[in-house]
Amino acid sequence: MKIATAVPQTPAEARALIRDGKFRRTTAGVAPGHAQANLAILPKDLAFDFLLFCQRNPKPCPILEVVEAGKTEPRLVAPGADLRYDLPKYRVYRHGKLEAEVDDLGEQWRGDLVSFLLGCSFSFENAMMNSGIELRHVQRGTNVSMYITNIQTTPAGVFSGPMVVSMRPIPHEKVVKAVQVTSRYPSVHGAPVHVGDPAAIGIRDIAKPDFGDVTEIRDSEVPVFWACGVTPQAVAMKSKPALMITHAPGHMFITDKRDEDYAVI
Amino acid sequence: MKIATAVPQTPAEARALIRDGKFRRTTAGVAPGHAQANLAILPKDLAFDFLLFCQRNPKPCPILEVVEAGKTEPRLVAPGADLRYDLPKYRVYRHGKLEAEVDDLGEQWRGDLVSFLLGCSFSFENAMMNSGIELRHVQRGTNVSMYITNIQTTPAGVFSGPMVVSMRPIPHEKVVKAVQVTSRYPSVHGAPVHVGDPAAIGIRDIAKPDFGDVTEIRDSEVPVFWACGVTPQAVAMKSKPALMITHAPGHMFITDKRDEDYAVI
Repeated sequence: MKIATAVPQTPAEARALIRDGKFRRTTAGVAPGHAQANLAILPKDLAFDFLLFCQRNPKPCPILEVVEAGKTEPRLVAPGADLRYDLPKYRVYRHGKLEAEVDDLGEQWRGDLVSFLLGCSFSFENAMMNSGIELRHVQRGTNVSMYITNIQTTPAGVFSGPMVVSMRPIPHEKVVKAVQVTSRYPSVHGAPVHVGDPAAIGIRDIAKPDFGDVTEIRDSEVPVFWACGVTPQAVAMKSKPALMITHAPGHMFITDKRDEDYAVI
Repeated sequence: MKIATAVPQTPAEARALIRDGKFRRTTAGVAPGHAQANLAILPKDLAFDFLLFCQRNPKPCPILEVVEAGKTEPRLVAPGADLRYDLPKYRVYRHGKLEAEVDDLGEQWRGDLVSFLLGCSFSFENAMMNSGIELRHVQRGTNVSMYITNIQTTPAGVFSGPMVVSMRPIPHEKVVKAVQVTSRYPSVHGAPVHVGDPAAIGIRDIAKPDFGDVTEIRDSEVPVFWACGVTPQAVAMKSKPALMITHAPGHMFITDKRDEDYAVI
């Protein structure tokens, strides 16, 4: 099968290539300017608790859309799309353990599954780069550094646990701008949760991220921390649901929405 | 019983007076600077659909807190408070019909009830007045004018229906300021949904509000429309739930949160 190498420029083009099995790579840089989403799929009996958890913790769990049980089309953010086929790669977890990585959900799908699309940091990263703030992990093509903090999320039903944050080194003179720019996007993680001291939020060693790659911090820079979309996955997994399906890391769902649609002002 | 006449200045004082049966009036002007909330209580079997409806329609249905089935303490916005006793007046509806107006929910309470606290326009009205924008209905002591529009909410499960808006006449030279100020508070209805032409959102006669009182609009003024917290009540009632309990109009729940806590920037 021929695998496309050019980066698709529109959401519809990207999803069509994915559905046809011609694009199985990470979605970074795909359909620039359009919001991408984390996917979390859970059985209906956990849906109220998880929706409430997201509502109580909007910074790490910003909901873009919830697709009700039995439905697979995210009508609000990508009419015509099908969540079973339109992501490049999925992970299937049973009782909190990774069972398989799959290309589509044709076999796994059940009528009682509720799908959550959650905002992704690509949106505010684009906004920062558009404002002239360079992001080292993007420039180097590495994964952003992520850390488990001592900031507790607000529990809901069976879901609870610490917040996971991502860290980006920001030059001193651009910290205010970075706060301002990301504050415009509360639906996609929004303003930082912390600026400056890793120890203040329970991070012992900034050189040892819990997820992702190490990122160099220069003397002229401040580590700035944002709530991370890994949080809801980590929290959900902790409750060991009988079945949970997510996107594979970096293999996001590409919506028709523009990043700018999520700007509050 | 002695009824207090002075206006309580703090949330705790106000709720204590209410719980003791010494304050049964509307809460406008009570505990200035603190956010007040609409209350909607529904049986658990409707809770997921209603939570999803609010999530999909954040402008008319901005959630401040959801108190899970069996619990009565809104721990996030007013620790120690009890939703059964701490509002001055409640309305009990069965199958969509008003059954009773009561002072507390001691008799009505059941373990399967889920309580939703939704943001209230008092918060952004205070912000506008602090910015020098005079509000006619506040000055005259009348109710704000409310209208059923042709703007459809996004349905969720059994809930659907048109958006209800409130209208405030704003002087031409203050329209931009009114948009800016209210945009800061997306959790309490936020920016206007429409500026200018009532007909454009399906309002036939601005002199005949569907709820509230008539408000004069002068030649130097523009009618500006905001999503209204009556929307979720109207939508919920339309589905004729076996039981639904709300605050009585104007008799809100007073939270410990400051209006400013809900400002995004």
